[in-house]
Amino acid sequence: MGFVRTHRFRFGDIDHAGVAYFPNLLHLCHCTFEDWWADGVGTSYPVLMREHDLGFPVVHLESDFFRPIRFGDDLDVHLAVLRVGRSSAEFGYWMTRAGTDEVMCRMRITTAAVSMATLQKREIPETWKQHFDRFRIAESRFPTGR
Amino acid sequence: MGFVRTHRFRFGDIDHAGVAYFPNLLHLCHCTFEDWWADGVGTSYPVLMREHDLGFPVVHLESDFFRPIRFGDDLDVHLAVLRVGRSSAEFGYWMTRAGTDEVMCRMRITTAAVSMATLQKREIPETWKQHFDRFRIAESRFPTGR
Amino acid sequence: MGFVRTHRFRFGDIDHAGVAYFPNLLHLCHCTFEDWWADGVGTSYPVLMREHDLGFPVVHLESDFFRPIRFGDDLDVHLAVLRVGRSSAEFGYWMTRAGTDEVMCRMRITTAAVSMATLQKREIPETWKQHFDRFRIAESRFPTGR
Amino acid sequence: MGFVRTHRFRFGDIDHAGVAYFPNLLHLCHCTFEDWWADGVGTSYPVLMREHDLGFPVVHLESDFFRPIRFGDDLDVHLAVLRVGRSSAEFGYWMTRAGTDEVMCRMRITTAAVSMATLQKREIPETWKQHFDRFRIAESRFPTGR
Repeated sequence: MGFVRTHRFRFGDIDHAGVAYFPNLLHLCHCTFEDWWADGVGTSYPVLMREHDLGFPVVHLESDFFRPIRFGDDLDVHLAVLRVGRSSAEFGYWMTRAGTDEVMCRMRITTAAVSMATLQKREIPETWKQHFDRFRIAESRFPTGR
Repeated sequence: MGFVRTHRFRFGDIDHAGVAYFPNLLHLCHCTFEDWWADGVGTSYPVLMREHDLGFPVVHLESDFFRPIRFGDDLDVHLAVLRVGRSSAEFGYWMTRAGTDEVMCRMRITTAAVSMATLQKREIPETWKQHFDRFRIAESRFPTGR
Repeated sequence: MGFVRTHRFRFGDIDHAGVAYFPNLLHLCHCTFEDWWADGVGTSYPVLMREHDLGFPVVHLESDFFRPIRFGDDLDVHLAVLRVGRSSAEFGYWMTRAGTDEVMCRMRITTAAVSMATLQKREIPETWKQHFDRFRIAESRFPTGR
Repeated sequence: MGFVRTHRFRFGDIDHAGVAYFPNLLHLCHCTFEDWWADGVGTSYPVLMREHDLGFPVVHLESDFFRPIRFGDDLDVHLAVLRVGRSSAEFGYWMTRAGTDEVMCRMRITTAAVSMATLQKREIPETWKQHFDRFRIAESRFPTGR
């Protein structure tokens, strides 16, 4: 079903063209990823890293920017799980103008599961996989921006 | 042939895992894009925007992160042109540990050519296309990280 | 009485020492300033800038950092008005570990009132001054960190 | 005497008002601090932290913003040492439009000397103090912006 968090787009996140500077939108994805751990899964990302020796660094990402985002736009940032493997997971993000279906941009972010102690790959424990499945959507439901 | 600029990786560009926070690497691409305009093409990006009514917002990006980057790593950020269309251009970036061939990450960034006055698509004037061609490389030369 | 907003301290806002990178804390002040306009005053900052031709750029700031902030800390960011002049206003910010009185840092930020059209100083209209007064505190109530 | 480093002001470092977002200017100070260690003192900041167990977190800062900085402005960022104590040091920074004496902003940043292992205060070893003295200026030479 996905997870949604509303974010204000910020005064300082704008570039010289007066629209969202794209690295700041990717930062917003990671913020939403952190919120999803805390509020969707129920274990905060710092606790996951410290107490469960598990982290999810980004190994691949693809992003489409469909419409310019401006200061004053509130954004609904949606997160869903697109794919779960033995030691990797792919997340889909899309941002809509708050309260509408207008998709401004989307990101597909593949993360590796690693041990925080070594930064080496490890398997995703079954207990977390079950949480991931709760937020899984079919590829066909990942919005295209049209 | 490409364009290279060496950047120090910064104290504040690190995340809680002690490695580069990926949005900051995308920011580094845009900094290199700006340096390329000023020092590679010979017309600075602010002058291009203000006096030639031309800008290149990002419409699509793909990125692979091969190896963790740490504080103290100096990076050679390489820029090359992968494709030039009527009103879009695709740039390839890759970062090597300074002075080595070790590829840490790469980005493929598609930009639309727009009028800064309207943010609407426009054609890329021939004079700039010729500059783009000087920095063009074949797809086969875009590093794979292996 | 002041205004409070709880923020998660973020994975990417950390520096190589593993604690909050100070420019990111100043960014957090500005985010809270924007939240205060929208939710405290009742007119969002983008609307203030666009429809009322009024903005508040920073002209002076002082900041004390008392305790290191780490990933996983939630912060209550407090905003209060310390002083209102004809065309300037001084805001006090302090951050406590969420739900406690432990002051981690504080900032005193002087802003000039300017016309967004010209970036020149202008007087603060009476209607906004009245809102500022609602959030005014005595200097003695601005926390010292001890 | 001081230390100077020229920085391009960047496309993404702008805010909705079209001028420098102030936290990004403080980031620029820290970048210059890092450059000063590497190129002024001769020991890079990561090496100082890792091999000499010494770091300099910010405990207090004051900053004045005199003139708006825009995209396209190149900045000379000047660093000088204003005061050295047993376990703290105060640095002065000021930014001029590149190649001119026009002071755009200045910062006074007090840092504590800490052990990186414990984040506890420690004395600054004599060998570093001698380097600091080479970059010392009298208070009267710290620019006022007028």
